[in-house]
Amino acid sequence: MSQQQAARSTTAGATDATAATPPGAGMAADIADQPEAFARLAETQSGAIADIAAEIARERPRFVMFTARGTSDHAALYAAYLTEIRLGIPAGLASPSAITVYGARPDLSEALVVGVSQSGGSPDIAEVLRVASESGARTLAVTNNPESPLAKQAGLNIDVSAGHEKAVAATKTYTAELLALFMLIEGIRAGDGKLAGDEAAAVAALPELARTVLADETPVQLAARYRFAERLVTTGRGYAYPTARETALKLMETSYLSALSFSGADLLHGPLAMADPDIPVLAIVGDGPGGNAMRDVIGRLGERRADVVSIGASDVEGAPIRIPVPAVDERLAPMLDILPLQRLALALALNRGENPDAPRGLRKVTETL
Amino acid sequence: MSQQQAARSTTAGATDATAATPPGAGMAADIADQPEAFARLAETQSGAIADIAAEIARERPRFVMFTARGTSDHAALYAAYLTEIRLGIPAGLASPSAITVYGARPDLSEALVVGVSQSGGSPDIAEVLRVASESGARTLAVTNNPESPLAKQAGLNIDVSAGHEKAVAATKTYTAELLALFMLIEGIRAGDGKLAGDEAAAVAALPELARTVLADETPVQLAARYRFAERLVTTGRGYAYPTARETALKLMETSYLSALSFSGADLLHGPLAMADPDIPVLAIVGDGPGGNAMRDVIGRLGERRADVVSIGASDVEGAPIRIPVPAVDERLAPMLDILPLQRLALALALNRGENPDAPRGLRKVTETL
Repeated sequence: MSQQQAARSTTAGATDATAATPPGAGMAADIADQPEAFARLAETQSGAIADIAAEIARERPRFVMFTARGTSDHAALYAAYLTEIRLGIPAGLASPSAITVYGARPDLSEALVVGVSQSGGSPDIAEVLRVASESGARTLAVTNNPESPLAKQAGLNIDVSAGHEKAVAATKTYTAELLALFMLIEGIRAGDGKLAGDEAAAVAALPELARTVLADETPVQLAARYRFAERLVTTGRGYAYPTARETALKLMETSYLSALSFSGADLLHGPLAMADPDIPVLAIVGDGPGGNAMRDVIGRLGERRADVVSIGASDVEGAPIRIPVPAVDERLAPMLDILPLQRLALALALNRGENPDAPRGLRKVTETL
Repeated sequence: MSQQQAARSTTAGATDATAATPPGAGMAADIADQPEAFARLAETQSGAIADIAAEIARERPRFVMFTARGTSDHAALYAAYLTEIRLGIPAGLASPSAITVYGARPDLSEALVVGVSQSGGSPDIAEVLRVASESGARTLAVTNNPESPLAKQAGLNIDVSAGHEKAVAATKTYTAELLALFMLIEGIRAGDGKLAGDEAAAVAALPELARTVLADETPVQLAARYRFAERLVTTGRGYAYPTARETALKLMETSYLSALSFSGADLLHGPLAMADPDIPVLAIVGDGPGGNAMRDVIGRLGERRADVVSIGASDVEGAPIRIPVPAVDERLAPMLDILPLQRLALALALNRGENPDAPRGLRKVTETL
């Protein structure tokens, strides 16, 4: 998509996904806005996030519980890895239903409970934070709406500042959540909330890298390949596993594919049996530890003659086609690797005659209890 | 499958899934053995589990981290719900790769870390327990092999006593893990490790209930319906969500279906768009809080004209076909609801000319790092 197209759909933003705008214009504009959204978040929220990070660093929670749904759940999963690996604090994803459906009241003293939601409007996430607060936890909301019920419920609040998202399928709010959580957790690691030199430089470089990734047309060309695919598998390990999960969700939401995502390890515990030449595989294979741990998995998929396309900075044995992304630290890769995969989902939906701005059956704020 | 067939394959058990035994005989025998396996576990391990439960109750961990892969991950998910709801102790599922791939060393003092694995042979799960122990955690293994590396690594060890499992696809080791974890967690709740009257009675009733469920032929008749299905969705909430996950994995392993599982709430956050009359849905809808929270989801699936089959004790509006199971407490239902779904996977694999005892590409002990 050209910058012009993006600008046009941005100015038409107030009406969102209506018959007046071409199908996918909203999602295209959201995707194209991501370099700016990264820059905006870093410029306008660095100070606020650093203050929150410093406060959490002083309190040093015993463990961190993330709670989220849908796309935001994938940002939460990324943050859980980062928390364990970078902070040495145990972290996990909470099932809201234990609290909201079964009335669980876990002892959360000395815990940090983080609710992640682009709309901040999902009642179950707000309810988990309310109960967590009553149960002794520090609570933090990460949302794109600082006036939302979730943000008001939480003791601390990060605004991911992604701007208005036009399409129902979340794109720029997802990558903004990732970056906000990266800034938060690396700020906690630094102690005073301020990013260390390497991390600050990485954040500063992100908008330009995102622009480069979005200029590559490989994902649009690839969409033709999957025009008639009914199912697809996505896979990745470690920091790349949330990207695999989010890719699958985007393809399901926009193109109505049955897209299954597995960590590379879990794939070998059963689902590998399903792989055959007729099921395409999208594998996120970076150059760091998680990517290296994937190479054996790609080999096993090769034994099953699976059709593997890789996403990464270098070629992978067994994956004849590659979507190129820059070689960056695996902690930053999730904010870049997802960009061509969002474009793939958009292009595929359009190829199939669907309107990804308004997927059938979905609503922007999902009110689950 | 008749008791006679089960007995025949049991006596032929030493050779496992070879050309000498008919396809699926191993899995059929494993499935049929579950009532006995429940009785065996309760008879032979109640004392040992009570001792471990009493010890954990005395120590009262601040939080519980479960770590597992594949089918055992679904037993761990069940146990995480039970821990939060019944013990009021925060619980989560750990991603082994944070520790094994990225070298995370979280502070686990006052934590209980539970590794669940039928074989006890997966190196990453054993490694997580080794690191957890070094990081101050109490460690517990739940396995079907007390001589396994995982069992030897752990400070405490529960033998689920399911006996030798013939098929690669896990069935009786899964339900034995569920029951062992139920006995453990309810024992911790009791304080002295011994089950309270209601829970003891429920465990005692389980073998006979399982026999009744296994005698019903609905799942075998249903297999014909899915003969040519390439994709399928499973869904459930709360305690029933692990059943949805395990059903999807069993169908992938044995029948090479693309089976997607979602919590009822997550289904509304995106994947619902994919639902249409051509994608069958299996919905676990019990009579308790989790089942009640599913009824709205079934309504939304109905708007999309999805083909819904329910598993439960009472009919559900929007699901014209039902696989009957007895009305039991939702904590016990996972040990019964999965039985007809295992039989469905077996029958479907046989209808498709596959051998579920030896799925293509899989090994019984999966050695992921």
